[in-house]
Amino acid sequence: TLIGGEQMYGRYTQELGVYAKEEAARLRDGGGLRRVTSVRSRSAELLEYEKDPCAKCHVCTSRCQKFLISRVGEDWIFLILLGLVMALVSWVMDYAIAFCQQAQKWMYGGLDSNMLLQYLAWVTYPVVLITFSAGFTQILSPQAVGSGIPEMKTILRGVVLKEYLTFKTFVAKVIGLTCALGSGMPLGKEGPFVHVASLCAALLSKFLAALFGGLYKNELRNTEMLSAACAVGVGCCFAAPIGGVLFSIEVTSTFFAVRNYWRGFFAATFSAFIFRVLAVWNQDEETITALFKTRFRLDFPFDLQELPAFAILGIACGFGGALFVYLNRLIVECMRKQKTINKFLLRKRLVYPAMVTLIISTLTFPPGFGQFMAGQLTQHESLVALLDNRTWCRQGVAEEFDYISHSHAWKHPQVNVFITLILFIVMKFWMSAVATTMPVPCGAFMPVFLIGAAFGRLVGETMAIMFPDGIHADGSVYPIVPGGYAVVGAAALSGAVTHTVSTAVIVFELTGQISHILPVMIAVILANAVAQSLQPSLYDSIIRIKKLPYLPELGMGHHEKYNIRVEDIMVRDVRYITLSSSYREVQEVLMTGQLKTLALVESTDSMILLGSIERSQLQSLLSLQLGPTRRLDHLRRHAQDNGTHTHTLGAHTHLTSLDTMDSPPSPPCTHTHSYTSNSSNTSARHGVRFLVSVAEVILNPLPQIAEWEEQQLDEPVDFNNCKIDPAPFQLVERTSLHKTHTIFSLLGLDHAYVTSTGRLVGVVSLRELRKAIEGSVTVTGVKVRPPLASFRDSGNTTSVSEVTELHKLWNRHRGLSLPREPTPPDMEDQLDKDNKLLPKGS
Amino acid sequence: TLIGGEQMYGRYTQELGVYAKEEAARLRDGGGLRRVTSVRSRSAELLEYEKDPCAKCHVCTSRCQKFLISRVGEDWIFLILLGLVMALVSWVMDYAIAFCQQAQKWMYGGLDSNMLLQYLAWVTYPVVLITFSAGFTQILSPQAVGSGIPEMKTILRGVVLKEYLTFKTFVAKVIGLTCALGSGMPLGKEGPFVHVASLCAALLSKFLAALFGGLYKNELRNTEMLSAACAVGVGCCFAAPIGGVLFSIEVTSTFFAVRNYWRGFFAATFSAFIFRVLAVWNQDEETITALFKTRFRLDFPFDLQELPAFAILGIACGFGGALFVYLNRLIVECMRKQKTINKFLLRKRLVYPAMVTLIISTLTFPPGFGQFMAGQLTQHESLVALLDNRTWCRQGVAEEFDYISHSHAWKHPQVNVFITLILFIVMKFWMSAVATTMPVPCGAFMPVFLIGAAFGRLVGETMAIMFPDGIHADGSVYPIVPGGYAVVGAAALSGAVTHTVSTAVIVFELTGQISHILPVMIAVILANAVAQSLQPSLYDSIIRIKKLPYLPELGMGHHEKYNIRVEDIMVRDVRYITLSSSYREVQEVLMTGQLKTLALVESTDSMILLGSIERSQLQSLLSLQLGPTRRLDHLRRHAQDNGTHTHTLGAHTHLTSLDTMDSPPSPPCTHTHSYTSNSSNTSARHGVRFLVSVAEVILNPLPQIAEWEEQQLDEPVDFNNCKIDPAPFQLVERTSLHKTHTIFSLLGLDHAYVTSTGRLVGVVSLRELRKAIEGSVTVTGVKVRPPLASFRDSGNTTSVSEVTELHKLWNRHRGLSLPREPTPPDMEDQLDKDNKLLPKGS
Repeated sequence: TLIGGEQMYGRYTQELGVYAKEEAARLRDGGGLRRVTSVRSRSAELLEYEKDPCAKCHVCTSRCQKFLISRVGEDWIFLILLGLVMALVSWVMDYAIAFCQQAQKWMYGGLDSNMLLQYLAWVTYPVVLITFSAGFTQILSPQAVGSGIPEMKTILRGVVLKEYLTFKTFVAKVIGLTCALGSGMPLGKEGPFVHVASLCAALLSKFLAALFGGLYKNELRNTEMLSAACAVGVGCCFAAPIGGVLFSIEVTSTFFAVRNYWRGFFAATFSAFIFRVLAVWNQDEETITALFKTRFRLDFPFDLQELPAFAILGIACGFGGALFVYLNRLIVECMRKQKTINKFLLRKRLVYPAMVTLIISTLTFPPGFGQFMAGQLTQHESLVALLDNRTWCRQGVAEEFDYISHSHAWKHPQVNVFITLILFIVMKFWMSAVATTMPVPCGAFMPVFLIGAAFGRLVGETMAIMFPDGIHADGSVYPIVPGGYAVVGAAALSGAVTHTVSTAVIVFELTGQISHILPVMIAVILANAVAQSLQPSLYDSIIRIKKLPYLPELGMGHHEKYNIRVEDIMVRDVRYITLSSSYREVQEVLMTGQLKTLALVESTDSMILLGSIERSQLQSLLSLQLGPTRRLDHLRRHAQDNGTHTHTLGAHTHLTSLDTMDSPPSPPCTHTHSYTSNSSNTSARHGVRFLVSVAEVILNPLPQIAEWEEQQLDEPVDFNNCKIDPAPFQLVERTSLHKTHTIFSLLGLDHAYVTSTGRLVGVVSLRELRKAIEGSVTVTGVKVRPPLASFRDSGNTTSVSEVTELHKLWNRHRGLSLPREPTPPDMEDQLDKDNKLLPKGS
Repeated sequence: TLIGGEQMYGRYTQELGVYAKEEAARLRDGGGLRRVTSVRSRSAELLEYEKDPCAKCHVCTSRCQKFLISRVGEDWIFLILLGLVMALVSWVMDYAIAFCQQAQKWMYGGLDSNMLLQYLAWVTYPVVLITFSAGFTQILSPQAVGSGIPEMKTILRGVVLKEYLTFKTFVAKVIGLTCALGSGMPLGKEGPFVHVASLCAALLSKFLAALFGGLYKNELRNTEMLSAACAVGVGCCFAAPIGGVLFSIEVTSTFFAVRNYWRGFFAATFSAFIFRVLAVWNQDEETITALFKTRFRLDFPFDLQELPAFAILGIACGFGGALFVYLNRLIVECMRKQKTINKFLLRKRLVYPAMVTLIISTLTFPPGFGQFMAGQLTQHESLVALLDNRTWCRQGVAEEFDYISHSHAWKHPQVNVFITLILFIVMKFWMSAVATTMPVPCGAFMPVFLIGAAFGRLVGETMAIMFPDGIHADGSVYPIVPGGYAVVGAAALSGAVTHTVSTAVIVFELTGQISHILPVMIAVILANAVAQSLQPSLYDSIIRIKKLPYLPELGMGHHEKYNIRVEDIMVRDVRYITLSSSYREVQEVLMTGQLKTLALVESTDSMILLGSIERSQLQSLLSLQLGPTRRLDHLRRHAQDNGTHTHTLGAHTHLTSLDTMDSPPSPPCTHTHSYTSNSSNTSARHGVRFLVSVAEVILNPLPQIAEWEEQQLDEPVDFNNCKIDPAPFQLVERTSLHKTHTIFSLLGLDHAYVTSTGRLVGVVSLRELRKAIEGSVTVTGVKVRPPLASFRDSGNTTSVSEVTELHKLWNRHRGLSLPREPTPPDMEDQLDKDNKLLPKGS
């Protein structure tokens, strides 16, 4: 039932872990040829979403250190390149979109003799564009669907989402987005642009790594660059560098390193600069100004007594924002639950977007219903009109209202401008909520921004009607500026939907005026307060719908969450290897489990945690043990020993052929590596011959070889050439969920071991933590105890609970080493009393 | 030689640890009465700067959990109160300062008949004010001296600076600051206001805790509130909420939790709102507008071809900013090195500020040299004039320049306006650098901002002379706006001095116009790039001068820092207690060392780290063991045993008197606590009587008691009533300095234990880390190895070095449990080769 979501939002409709397991099962049944290869391929597949190796990223180890030294210079170049490319992309895309929309207008205008033809032209054009966009992205890269901000949030958290940062996705996203926006549907550019900028940064990194190598390959650096890229995305989309940086921080980060601040600022400023310079060079503008420049009066922007109206506007926008998020989720969930619709849509993937487009464009058809809701205006035109500094309603219906060619859209001969505005708001509201569920690259920021502006304009016009000469009591008359309300409404509604405060800054940069700063700030904060208490942000909502591997925030006011401890959620059945493990045990451990690293303990009895080893390291060890060098060695010795040349002849020829191409003696580590990576180091021809030989050796299971293999597997592992992380992150059983969550967020952990006085007792991964926070701790292997836990701290001694485990140890110790002294009777009494306060049990 | 710094900057002139040690020595020689009391008082003194108990603050434990649940409501109220109070303080202070400055003008204006009298009036007034300010703060609270931002940075890092957040300091800071600013010296309000707001938040917390208890006592909450308060401080000083939040984040944080973002925004917005509303209510303004409102044209704010000029302005400001920081430090260091000056100044603490004020005010005397540098203008008036949208130099010298009464200041009959500007810049530059070293509450932001504006105006006027009709080639003439350059220059220079980008936002909010966003951003980023590569920020410079316990940032490009490991800097001589320690050992351990917690290990042989115990817990244990209850118990039993009533008569009366006032049976923990805190729970009269009795018992060292005490000390410690942290932060020996630094910064640690496979081998505290980063790893007990370390990683196997310690263990293990298998000869070879690559030694 979950698969239907693919229609809606990209790919992550199933729990990723489940998917990974199924894949693994398929592979297992299909079967690898022999053990070694199957281990290798399976574990590669198992790690469907694997942790970024550098995602403890602030806390990185030696390999990150060298590059830190001399990279600052390279950073500048990279950021300039990124800004330049993104500004060009943004500008070209805007140009293409404007062209698309102009083409539709021409078609529509040229056919004004026949209403039916006009309607067909009006409707067909967006349907074709959207269908093309949906089909194109579906074929080329389904990961390009949707906003991209939720995915970036997840990627910056440290989780590698496969295929999300490839060239294919880049092409799909850019072309799909251009078509989608060109269709005139209520879709936005901001969210996808964050993704495009990140794609651009990732590709640029790869490109530069291929050219110059070294520095550009570092993954810590790439994460930093990705977060700068997010800022660039917003910055060059709106020509809003400061707002872009802040918005990207608010939307994608949990903890923000202030030392990375300047990167975002620099890149976003450069990008916004180039973006606007291009407009000047293209003679669109005389000089660099704001994208939606307003011309409100400076000397008296608003009256103090208008502030309550602004506050009410903010609160209303808060409710509106929450409603939008709820509506959006409701639509997606409805589509998923209706099995018949779901099945149909799954087979005909392009029907849904086409249908939605058809309905929306029919409703906005200007000679039809569209005349009551300014249907023929593009988003850009509508926004310019709404932010106009004239009052529409003054002296009847919009007499002096003749803004650049958009006048006829809003003033309808029969209908009041208020009706037009209300219809515009209501229709656009659900249209935007529906349109953003289409499987095309699209964002929701701009439509929401537009609705907010319209709502603000509505409130402003109402105020202008109520107080025609302004509120001010003194002699001078300062009429009310409805455009100011539109600015405030836009910021508040978009802030409510995205749960950000920085929309205020974006709005200043977009309009080029900061005079309404206090109303905007007040409205945005109130809208945020309302919306955050009702619904998650749109991006978090999508993360939940898509079931992305992201750690949710700990909500305030959830009582039980503070009483859950690590011991309630940890997986007790930890996969580990001991210092005396045999290769067979390593092989078995590798066959199961999903975590990228495995625990190394001293022995099964002591269980003292010594460190963790990456899977790939163990695979190397295993390959080394069963690898061709040793295999050949054995065969050669075997051949020498029994001297029978008849049935080992075939093997012998292999041996000699392998011998001739054996590289000069190298440390086993490199050798192994070149083997597991299909000998990429040797020349291609060499490599193919080598592989053929190896395959022959492996595929001819001589009886001695099988026996030798079994024997090899029983040997204890030689850890000498294995890189061990001697300090994996550890928690204790009593660590609270809250603390665990904070540590995981801060350090970007994937998993942490749970130890009890040095002994490994469990492991907690992102997955368990997520489940615990979402309140569904019901998976096998995970102990459910929240109902119990909620009663745990009801006693009056909260601090005692963390003490107990050491007391047990201490008591044991005392019992062993020292005779217990007789304590005075009153002390004994008190001890007993204390012991009663301590919770019994583990 | 360091003590002279007290003249300059508050108190932290000596290394705090040294001071603490001396204090401790003094106390030890002076002597407490008996052991128990001496232990208590000494360790209280030893912790001169102790770690905030909640400073692992994001990672807090159980006690923080309860309050999290229902505190959001209280937060709003608290933030509103804080905003309200700060807005009132800011407004009243502005009013008082304006009044002071007006008084000076009246005095100066009224005496225009006699030049000498006029001079005396002009000079005496600021000298008296500054001397009073210096004296007042010196007497009431020397901690109020200076900016306060460096201290807040340190406090938010988690270090408790004594006396920095008290009511005394609040009074001293507010009154001292008002006087200092009222004197008209080039001093700023911003930095001290950050401190004042934090003081206000801390006091408000205490007040509300006293009223409502519970929630307001939590320290994690207080830290969050302090960071919001910093934003309020900047916000209500400049009526710049967004800029305030960003500036406070940039200046005080290393890692920023995005979830605390809204607090700062909310409080700063509310505060800025009230601050400006007060101005409206006082009829100063008609409505809420910016503080330094500009009226630049909106349609064509600047030409694209002016951007190189803006860029050059930014770069020049970068150099200027670095020079300012250098100059400021140079002055302080000069004063310290000159022993004769130093000694003199130390005795006559008020001479230095009086002298500085005398020189500066003499130079600015309007009929004297001041006429060439607009000497009679206050900072506010100068800034308003500099941001004027008219061009001063057009058509000769400032013909049409008649801005509100400041015209005569800038246009001098004989001297060009350029000369005036240059003199203004040069004189104000060194004056500001000198003035900020005076021991009064003062900041440097505003003077620097003003100098930047003047420099920008200079560049702008030059441009206006060079291009009288503007640069634009098309038909329309857009003359150059020098005021825009002033805005850019102000943002760039203040950004360069403080190393922040958010001055750009502050400048928009201050002027109420955002049209120059791109020039400002470009200039600020360039200025930052230049300044950051030359000098530390002003606040970091002061932190170094004051030797505050702050962890410096890891600079880029310091090769050797990445090769230092924890084992190079850790203290190997760790104080620890074992599970079988006697009370005597605990007592000895408490007598030495400075860290707030002590390590608990299993035994001296195994050294396995079990957890850490706070000093106070151990002191409680010790007090309990030797405390009056047990003491009396012993005496009573002793008396009963030998039946001799003669010499224990005195003791016996004490016993009965103590018995009568003994509270009803309570658990020992509370009892102990009430004892150590001088029985604050009982009524005052009771308490005094109790204390007298205890003192008598303690002061009469009966021979049996002394013997009993010795016996008690030899008993093993009972850890049952002791709270143990079972998971103190641990590092391994091979952890790099870089990683250690990041973990310490992220988690706000004070110290971390170094373990080797569970065994405690050392401890690293903030102090060692700071020394290592500053490159002076020469203290006793700290192993110096950087020269060696720099060669360590010169081999080609960087990854190997972290592996070695486990190999040793493994080899040992192999040697013990399993017979070593014969390995094939080629493997042996490779192993040998590897071993050669591994560094020998510990």
